[in-house]
Amino acid sequence: MAQIYGKVALIGLGLIASSMAHAMRRGGVAAEISGYARSQATRDTARRIQLCDTVCDSAEAAVEGADLIVLAVPVGAMGVVAEAIAPHLKPGATVIDVGSVKAAVVEAVGPHVPDGVHFVPTHPMAGTEHSGPEAGFASLFDNRWTLIVPPDGADRAAVERVEAYWQALGANCERMEVTHHDLVCAVVSHIPHLIAYTMVGVADDLSRVSDQEVIKFSAAGFRDFTRIAASDPTMWRDVFLTNKEATLEMLGRFTEELFALQRAIRTGDGEELFDYFTRTRAIRRGIIEAGQDTDAPDFGRAKKHDR
Amino acid sequence: MAQIYGKVALIGLGLIASSMAHAMRRGGVAAEISGYARSQATRDTARRIQLCDTVCDSAEAAVEGADLIVLAVPVGAMGVVAEAIAPHLKPGATVIDVGSVKAAVVEAVGPHVPDGVHFVPTHPMAGTEHSGPEAGFASLFDNRWTLIVPPDGADRAAVERVEAYWQALGANCERMEVTHHDLVCAVVSHIPHLIAYTMVGVADDLSRVSDQEVIKFSAAGFRDFTRIAASDPTMWRDVFLTNKEATLEMLGRFTEELFALQRAIRTGDGEELFDYFTRTRAIRRGIIEAGQDTDAPDFGRAKKHDR
Repeated sequence: MAQIYGKVALIGLGLIASSMAHAMRRGGVAAEISGYARSQATRDTARRIQLCDTVCDSAEAAVEGADLIVLAVPVGAMGVVAEAIAPHLKPGATVIDVGSVKAAVVEAVGPHVPDGVHFVPTHPMAGTEHSGPEAGFASLFDNRWTLIVPPDGADRAAVERVEAYWQALGANCERMEVTHHDLVCAVVSHIPHLIAYTMVGVADDLSRVSDQEVIKFSAAGFRDFTRIAASDPTMWRDVFLTNKEATLEMLGRFTEELFALQRAIRTGDGEELFDYFTRTRAIRRGIIEAGQDTDAPDFGRAKKHDR
Repeated sequence: MAQIYGKVALIGLGLIASSMAHAMRRGGVAAEISGYARSQATRDTARRIQLCDTVCDSAEAAVEGADLIVLAVPVGAMGVVAEAIAPHLKPGATVIDVGSVKAAVVEAVGPHVPDGVHFVPTHPMAGTEHSGPEAGFASLFDNRWTLIVPPDGADRAAVERVEAYWQALGANCERMEVTHHDLVCAVVSHIPHLIAYTMVGVADDLSRVSDQEVIKFSAAGFRDFTRIAASDPTMWRDVFLTNKEATLEMLGRFTEELFALQRAIRTGDGEELFDYFTRTRAIRRGIIEAGQDTDAPDFGRAKKHDR
């Protein structure tokens, strides 16, 4: 039990914020947790499940006297929220966000942060396909990476405290520069999501294959795409609108490669296909060795193996 | 314990065949199991782990007196194997294959099947990213679909027996017409695999993002792609070479959709992105309702939720 902050204010009460609340309580990381969500329904749910010590009806009220303010709203809403709470921030307080994109957040939030208040962008790389205050659970961040992306001239002590906070929630931390963060995330997260959304959309459109068939036989690979493609639409819309440059660049590379494989299929170049498919196995092995996933069969899904 | 066949011969001893061996023993489905693999190393391994009652040094010897012959080799090798074993098949015996593509297999194997021997193409839609005789486990087919794809004029009794056999291995069976099978599988399996291979290849090529970073931060969606992209290269090469038409058609549709989303990102059309991403959630829900996957968070991976 290591308390890092006194009062922590959660602005936005979705999957990430609600998981942070559970993890803070599990670790005794905060003395008090206040929360705010824009929708009345979400606030009611949060109160019913007692997600926070107090759920306020305004962001301004929630941040009153808070030592740490967590912006856990879609990237597109960060600027507005920051502007609204700015006058109510306690001197010496620290503001963090949990957005999947960083350059756009620094640009939108930074100007509103008053002198004497610290701003440390962070990005917990954990999630599920579920959303909302009831989707959270305390172990979401355990052994997952949280990227700490301090802007130039950020207060060293404030950054280290934020790092200690995320570690207390179970996360491994790594620091990254803003632009590089957005590129890396385009590769490992944003583009995979866009592709999954596209593939699911294609299947949905296909007239000669019924939805029933798509659903029934999804286990054969497609299922992993639908899992990714079920993530929160608002969050992902904002990710692509705010990480446009890196996303479009990676998309270009992706289609380039896809067309090369398409030609290999059309021309019947089995050797190229085989070599390509062999190369991808190495990355997979690396991920298992890095402890980022299990080596269990059936694509890591829980399963009994009775031989 | 329901014995369906006397002697069953497994030609090819990879993930599918070895899982069939375990499942046959679990269910007492066969009186005797013989096996053959082209590589000496694979045969040695199969003998060491006692995968079959007898492991033969030739396919001809393995099928001697067999009531059911299972062609469990890559689609591209089916024709050669069928030709080799044809003269040694017992009258009244049944030959099945477990290939992921059907039109090409019917074309390659059909002509070699002698009169009085039945040929019933099947496709167990189950697998893992692991390969080889040691990768198999008895529950691989449990509650997964096995598609039965009988050619025109197939013997009704023989087809029903094959169906009973797969059900005894734990599978749910559905009959499908050859061409339709290849289209459905292109959508739910072949294209998702090709896309996963491509995305992993892109990440691997990217100079400004180190492999280390790709691997470290893979949890954010990319991991599911690497899991798919780790499947057996030979099998998948053959799938794309032999299901060329359906694959290329689906690829065309996929890139069409992808370009539409790419334009939406470029022009900043958030509404289109939001609507698209919302639509894909329905399919995901359908898959969970159809019992094809779990609703557990963290993308279905096993995980403790201590709230």
